[in-house]
Formats: sequence, C-alpha cells, structure tokens
Amino acid sequence: MNKTPEKSQIKNLPIGIFDSGVGGLTVYRALHNRLPNEHFIYLGDTARVPYGTKSLATVERYAIENSQFLASHGIKMLVVACNTASALALPKIREKIGLDVVGVIGPGARKAVAVTSPNSKIAVIATEATVQSDAYRVSIKEASETAEVIQTACPLFVSLAEENWAKEPETFSIAKKYLDKIIEFQPEALVLGCTHYPILREVIQQTVGARVKLIDSGEACAEEVAQLLDWKELANPHKVAGERRLCDDLDHFYVTDAAERFARVAERFLGAKPAKLEAVELDELKKD
Amino acid sequence: MNKTPEKSQIKNLPIGIFDSGVGGLTVYRALHNRLPNEHFIYLGDTARVPYGTKSLATVERYAIENSQFLASHGIKMLVVACNTASALALPKIREKIGLDVVGVIGPGARKAVAVTSPNSKIAVIATEATVQSDAYRVSIKEASETAEVIQTACPLFVSLAEENWAKEPETFSIAKKYLDKIIEFQPEALVLGCTHYPILREVIQQTVGARVKLIDSGEACAEEVAQLLDWKELANPHKVAGERRLCDDLDHFYVTDAAERFARVAERFLGAKPAKLEAVELDELKKD
Repeated sequence: MNKTPEKSQIKNLPIGIFDSGVGGLTVYRALHNRLPNEHFIYLGDTARVPYGTKSLATVERYAIENSQFLASHGIKMLVVACNTASALALPKIREKIGLDVVGVIGPGARKAVAVTSPNSKIAVIATEATVQSDAYRVSIKEASETAEVIQTACPLFVSLAEENWAKEPETFSIAKKYLDKIIEFQPEALVLGCTHYPILREVIQQTVGARVKLIDSGEACAEEVAQLLDWKELANPHKVAGERRLCDDLDHFYVTDAAERFARVAERFLGAKPAKLEAVELDELKKD
Repeated sequence: MNKTPEKSQIKNLPIGIFDSGVGGLTVYRALHNRLPNEHFIYLGDTARVPYGTKSLATVERYAIENSQFLASHGIKMLVVACNTASALALPKIREKIGLDVVGVIGPGARKAVAVTSPNSKIAVIATEATVQSDAYRVSIKEASETAEVIQTACPLFVSLAEENWAKEPETFSIAKKYLDKIIEFQPEALVLGCTHYPILREVIQQTVGARVKLIDSGEACAEEVAQLLDWKELANPHKVAGERRLCDDLDHFYVTDAAERFARVAERFLGAKPAKLEAVELDELKKD
C-alpha cells in the first residue's frame, strides 16, 4: 500500500476479513448485506483451523501473519471475524499493522448492552477458548457495569453447523442440553459468540424462547464497520451496478488449504460458492 | 540415533507414535496394553490438528516433520496412529526415515478380513478425508478380492468423543442416523477407522447390533507391531518391575500446542494424565 495515498484512492480499496476457517463467512455475509458498495478480501486460515484449542502465543502469531497477508494486498480496514483471535490478539494486530481493526467481541458485547435494560442479564455462548478468555464478560462490563453475565461453551455446535444439521431433532436436543442453565438464568439477550452459531440461529431461538434477543456478533460488527467508514469518510462512493450477490466476483477469497472443502461449506452456509477462490501459502508455510 | 547400534541397544529404545492430536491416545492405549514391556514416545500435533480436512501435500509435510522429530529422539519403530496420515503419507514417511513404519489402516483392514468369512460384507466408518482417500477399501480388497465394502463418514463422532458424550441419548440418536445404511447393508464386521471412535465403541456396538464384529484399527495395529517386534527380535527383554499404568513415567508425551487441554482430554480418554508431558516446537514452528 502506498505510504501517502489520496483519500479518494483509499475509499476504493477493499475491506480485509480474516477467520481461522469457514465460520467467518457468516461475518462476511453480514458485512456484504450491510455494505453493498464495498468489496471484500477474505482469508480463511484453513491450514491451521481451529484456533479455539490453541495457545495465546500461537493464536497471536497466526493472527499477525493473516493480517499482514491482507494488508499487503491493499485494504482500507481489517475485520477480525474469528472470535478467538478477537479475544486474544487484537492489541498485537493493531500494534503490527497501521490500519483500523474491528473485531467481533466488542461490537457483540456493546450491541447486547444497547438492546437490553440497565442491570440486565446477558448470556453468551462461544467456544471453550473464548469462554475461558472471559473477553465477552469484560467487554459487556465495560459497556455496563451492572449487567449480569453468564457464559457457556457449546463445542458440538461447530460440527453441527458444518454438517448442516440446522433442522435435525438431535440438534434441538443437544441445544436444550447446552442451553439449560441459560434458560434457567432467564437472560434478556443471548450473544452468539462463535461465527458458526448463526447457522443454528433458529434452533437456538426456539430453545431459549422468543422473548430472548439473539445478538449476532457478526451483524453487530458490520454495523460498527459501517459507522467507522462513515466517521472516517472511507465508504466506497461507487454504487455497484446491478444487484450484488454473496460470493460474486467483486469479492476475493483466499484459503491456506483445502479450497475445495471451503467452497463446499461456503455453499452450505451462504447458498453460493465463491466466484474467486485461491489457495495461498502464508510466509510460514512457504518454508519447504 | 547411532548409525550402527547393537541390536541389544536397539531393543531398549522406545516405540514412536504420532497422531494429529489426542485421538491417537486410543492407539497408544492398545499398544501399551498389548506390549507392557515397551516404552513409548507419543507426539500429538495439536498445533495443526485436524489433518482430516487438509490436502495431501500438507498432510505429507506434517507427517514427515512429526516422524523426523520422533526419529531424532531415538526410536526403534514408528507407529502412525492417525488414520488420515496412514491413508495419505505412509510411502513418503518410509522414504524419509530408515525405520519400520506401521500405520493403522492396513492392520485394521487385514483384521477385518481375517475375522470374517470369504465374500463377506465389511463396513468402515472414518473421517471424510479417510473415506475420500478410499484407503480402507483398497487395503481390504488387497486382503480379499471378494469382500464387499461400504464406507461412511461420521464427522460428529469426533466432537462427541471429545465431549465425553459416550452415554448420552443424543449420541445414540446421531449414531443411528449415521449408521442407518450400514445396518441395512448387514455387514459381518465394522471397522472403527478413526482413532476417536473407540471412545464411542459401546454406542456403535448397540446401534449396529451384537452380531457385527467391531474392529478397532488401533488394537489391530498393536497386534501387528507385536508380531513385527517378534520377527525382528526387537522386543524389549526387560520386564518392567511392578505394574505398568497408562501414562506412567516410562512413556513420554509431546504436543505441539495447548498441553493443558491435551492432558484434560487424555484423562477423559484414558483415565489418567500423562506423567511426562512437554510442549515442543517442530522446525517449522520455530521460525520466529
């Protein structure tokens, strides 16, 4: 990226998104729907997925490599779609790349506080690593000291989403088991703190009941990105001619391994395969 | 390892085992139970798990790095506990290290043929990657041209095993769904072609019925390793004093990341945490 680019040039640049794998496609979908004039570059680190079971040092290193890869392609802003990387690596990423970086945890937490009453009860479901990091609780407490927070890990939800079992009775039964304590807690809002969980949104809503507000962290993130583009006057002024579709050829997808599987799951999640999909090797992977 | 070691010295060396993560602990358990005088070095590549969704080139590279790590510690034989690596990378591993290498697929396939009648029907359950590789079908056909083979992927079984949901009704219900076609096929034997599946052995046996012979590839592998030690006169002649326990301090465990989680799952799978557990960095991971 040019060191002193004109603002008018920067506006035309795409927004970078990275995730540990396919889950971030739900965040891409939210961004794409909210910002139809923007172009996106998505990197799914499928060679090293999942991040949720890895250590802080490893997640930081991977996140920085992903961010540098996207920055080197010329982007105007970076979205960290992966909850684990958002929980663990945002400070290091911001330190390493001179761009605005938006994660998913802050936006999800703020949205939950915004749509609930003071002293409200907020539940969070996420991967084991995200729950252990306590990042959602910290962010919610920053937005509302008096909010009461409960967190639960739902590890099977990731495989169930990738299997596309959003309507199977077993999924309802497993959801009931995982969400039992949350139902008892009677929260006003429930944050979907893992990128895979919006695929199971209906199951989760039915299980906790219609009065619980579901917060999709990806959608909350897309709203904050829209605000930031506005504040910084960086929104793309060129209206895309015709109708934009998810995964059309204005968006570019990269994966670090197994592109064919990525395309298959993308079709399950978004109803379309990426028009532009490339397998790449990050620096570390180039070694031999 | 010394280039011309005495056979008496070689006999005292441990057997190396590698897996993509925790699943191979069921193979370690089978080896440990079958060969109580042997010592083991186990490497779980937890930084890069799972292999089942990665490409051939990547799995080969990881498998060779793991094998070289174990060979550099002085082992007399190598067991590839990971079904995906056994399916994809055995020839390359054998080419790179001058040791006997035993995988899990050949032994599992041969055992299935050995315990069934001629022209028998044999079913295999495994990860998507192992099923796609067709390695079990090829190995079974090598042992018996007339055997009829059916293969099914059961992706949720891995998470269910790691969650320790071996007795939950949802697991039975999911097993019924995955194994429906196999039940219809009426096989004489069913091969557990993923290291995680023995954890769900009872669910699987109940679902397919008591007359179907379950073949644990890890146990079949342990039998062939015992034979090979015998043929090559490499069995450790020193009887271990007292009773050996799984994960005792004669066996050494290495992981490439998240040792704490590994210890936790080891306790779920084996009933004991490794006495000796170390996190290591393989060459590729040492870069920065």
